[in-house]
Amino acid sequence: MEEPEGVIKDMDPRLRNLDFAFNPRSIAFVGATESMRKWGFLILNNLLTGGYRGEVYPVNPGRDTVLGLKAYPRVSDIPGHVDLAIFTVPSRQVMEALRDCAEKGVKAALVITAGFKELGEEGARAEAHMVRLAREAGMVLIGPNCQGICCPANDLYPWMPILFHPPRGRIGYVSQSGNILNMLIGHAVTAGLGVSKAVSSGNEADLRTVDYYTYLGEDADTEVIVSYIEGLQDGRDFVSRAREVTRRKPIVVLKGGRTTSGVSAARSHTGAMAVSEDLFEAACRQAGVVVTRSIEECGITAAAFVNRPLPRGRRVGIVTGGGGLGVIASDFCTEIGLEVVPLSSRTLEKLEKMLPDWWVPGNPVDLVAGLDFSVIKPVIETLMTSGEVDAVMFLWIGAPRLKNARLKGERGMDLSGVWQSMDQYFLEHIGELYELMHQLQVPLYIATSLRMEDGGDPDGCPPLVFDSVESACRAVSAMAEYYRFREVMS
Amino acid sequence: MEEPEGVIKDMDPRLRNLDFAFNPRSIAFVGATESMRKWGFLILNNLLTGGYRGEVYPVNPGRDTVLGLKAYPRVSDIPGHVDLAIFTVPSRQVMEALRDCAEKGVKAALVITAGFKELGEEGARAEAHMVRLAREAGMVLIGPNCQGICCPANDLYPWMPILFHPPRGRIGYVSQSGNILNMLIGHAVTAGLGVSKAVSSGNEADLRTVDYYTYLGEDADTEVIVSYIEGLQDGRDFVSRAREVTRRKPIVVLKGGRTTSGVSAARSHTGAMAVSEDLFEAACRQAGVVVTRSIEECGITAAAFVNRPLPRGRRVGIVTGGGGLGVIASDFCTEIGLEVVPLSSRTLEKLEKMLPDWWVPGNPVDLVAGLDFSVIKPVIETLMTSGEVDAVMFLWIGAPRLKNARLKGERGMDLSGVWQSMDQYFLEHIGELYELMHQLQVPLYIATSLRMEDGGDPDGCPPLVFDSVESACRAVSAMAEYYRFREVMS
Repeated sequence: MEEPEGVIKDMDPRLRNLDFAFNPRSIAFVGATESMRKWGFLILNNLLTGGYRGEVYPVNPGRDTVLGLKAYPRVSDIPGHVDLAIFTVPSRQVMEALRDCAEKGVKAALVITAGFKELGEEGARAEAHMVRLAREAGMVLIGPNCQGICCPANDLYPWMPILFHPPRGRIGYVSQSGNILNMLIGHAVTAGLGVSKAVSSGNEADLRTVDYYTYLGEDADTEVIVSYIEGLQDGRDFVSRAREVTRRKPIVVLKGGRTTSGVSAARSHTGAMAVSEDLFEAACRQAGVVVTRSIEECGITAAAFVNRPLPRGRRVGIVTGGGGLGVIASDFCTEIGLEVVPLSSRTLEKLEKMLPDWWVPGNPVDLVAGLDFSVIKPVIETLMTSGEVDAVMFLWIGAPRLKNARLKGERGMDLSGVWQSMDQYFLEHIGELYELMHQLQVPLYIATSLRMEDGGDPDGCPPLVFDSVESACRAVSAMAEYYRFREVMS
Repeated sequence: MEEPEGVIKDMDPRLRNLDFAFNPRSIAFVGATESMRKWGFLILNNLLTGGYRGEVYPVNPGRDTVLGLKAYPRVSDIPGHVDLAIFTVPSRQVMEALRDCAEKGVKAALVITAGFKELGEEGARAEAHMVRLAREAGMVLIGPNCQGICCPANDLYPWMPILFHPPRGRIGYVSQSGNILNMLIGHAVTAGLGVSKAVSSGNEADLRTVDYYTYLGEDADTEVIVSYIEGLQDGRDFVSRAREVTRRKPIVVLKGGRTTSGVSAARSHTGAMAVSEDLFEAACRQAGVVVTRSIEECGITAAAFVNRPLPRGRRVGIVTGGGGLGVIASDFCTEIGLEVVPLSSRTLEKLEKMLPDWWVPGNPVDLVAGLDFSVIKPVIETLMTSGEVDAVMFLWIGAPRLKNARLKGERGMDLSGVWQSMDQYFLEHIGELYELMHQLQVPLYIATSLRMEDGGDPDGCPPLVFDSVESACRAVSAMAEYYRFREVMS
């Protein structure tokens, strides 16, 4: 039998079987149904409407077909080979079907079904049985009590959120909460980026967060890993293995359960074992993992790493299309430990020649004039080549686009075409700025209310454009911190 | 001569003239032009396309008409009465035109023109002359070096941002930066709320931030005031007068120039005098002003006050449609000093009867099941009537709506109608929850990825729906803080 395209080397050989989960040639769906409120319908339907092109075998002893596909009473009745088995049947029915899978040689199980460890001792025992069986069969088991996985490159979306088909991209996601997974992905996707692979890891009965790190660490499609964590089962293992990954690519983490009440909420959510916040942060520092404090910060910071060089220090040059934005950015940078450094007189003189007479020399560089890239580009280039800053921010935010924007009066000129031509002008020139960034290897962070298109082409996709000054500042700081870790490690 | 509808009592009588700025029957536009890159065109055009219905008199000695309106060489040539004069001519031409306005009895001047105090001593002298003349004539002067004003109730948008016509609402804005004004308004408007009056206050040569507070404090259309400040000219005056306003309605402030580099950026932006951050925060605490730390936090927190009772303490009950959201909310609440209090056994027993068998009793209340308001409503009501919490949060966030959401495959069922029916279901029932809030006077904070419609009806407009857990938590905290201030003051 031919194996699906593998990308993993030098790891626990069983982990390689995650290839069968993310790139399956065929799927058995245990619990497939047409009852529209059941997860066995919603997830199967997402898989089918998501465009997956492999074989799908619904397993349901009570039906001949499900959603137009021939159904089978048991996994063992399926005539063809099965790479991935998905479970949405009630927890007491999982074991028997899993045994069938083991006999059939299925290599990956996605157990979405809840009702295991999180419900107490009996559930924990059932969960342990399940894991033992999977491991003996050399099968990887995702979940239980999770919302599914996705791999856009293979049009694979066997997960809960309806019509949520993020495009292909370079960010890998591991989350101990399905909702938060969706929100994290949302922040990247609405900013124009996409997903390599995502997994809602649930109770982590078999595979743990750090196993997915190892797998995604070897995955050529994944440039950065994002992760929501409520609890760790083995802190030492986490540190040493995460560190192996962060030597090569960044991991950005959001930790749930930082406070007593958060820990108590986490206990009833996934039954996660609490980790003291201080210990966790120390472990992350040791492992070179970037720690964030909110869902948005986590999602955006991770996306910032894609296709952008790292700042080699904490000195920032700010170019702004509005004086107030420069003030806010200076404050925020300083508050998170970045340095809005004074520029040398040599650099200021160069800038002075490009800017109007009434320009007040300094950093931030307030452009004073309008959106004119014949000025903006040399200004940014001057900062990048000065050797005086490690990162450049370009801030151009103003009024948002209102859904109900329209001409209200019968007087005046219709300027509604202006937005489109501004977008076009901006998009044309933003590409040149990013070229400059790659050429000079000084990272550029653009914050603007002009919106990029939805992503979809991970190779051609330009780096993230930020929609707030604060999130851009945080990204600079996180990336500079990661650069320092890499330097220390090398 | 009949005066426009006034709303101000017991204040410096000259301040009443701001009525002529926000509700003018006629406007002279000094610097009107058809040169499409000039502010004299863009702002005039925004005024006309914004739907303003009063008389507009372009003033331009070189033209017979501007944008189809008869033009006049000087203000003194205008045949009719003028309530408001707007200036976009170069700074050296403002004085003469302002003199004409004084003679004509114009009561309000909006000087958008830059090139005064912010450019140094000569500009400062010109600015001082201008102010003296305005004050002698009993005229109020907004600016100079600003981006304009708006008053949606009167379809009045003489300001810079193109096609930015925020709807009428109950939030008043004063900002020392035009860009940040637009962004602050944007956060409220994209969340469904609107603007009472907004002003970009520029150099504040005549009227200062606190003057606008006093005016908006008396304005019946304004329920909450939002303000971006880079510098104060008289801290003592600010505290005593802001305090007069905050006794009646909240003021939410974002301060630019909290750090050395921020202060230095502010100096070259508006020439604002620096205030030490500690002094400023202490002054705000004394004055009952709510201090925020980012543009988004400021815009959203202010909007949270609209049409919502204040929490009478810091105890929070959390109801969540996803376990991870409850964890994140518990952490965030605790970190900003809110208490996610344990619920009494009496309350937990009541909740237990409403929720499934596998519900784990506690606060947050994890709904476990789907979006079912026949459960959600009594759960929220139980918390509100328990006397055990001062505010209730209801968190229901998941996958965002993608612009490119679509069926990708040819298999499965088209569920694209689901979003619309979920929205409808949500919108129908959210109204009942807000009724409950008003009836029981316990504030409710809903965070959801389901979107409300754009605002527009300030009286019928439901309170803000949050799009992140963190911004909802911050709003609870800010409002509880303001409640405490009011209690101390009364």
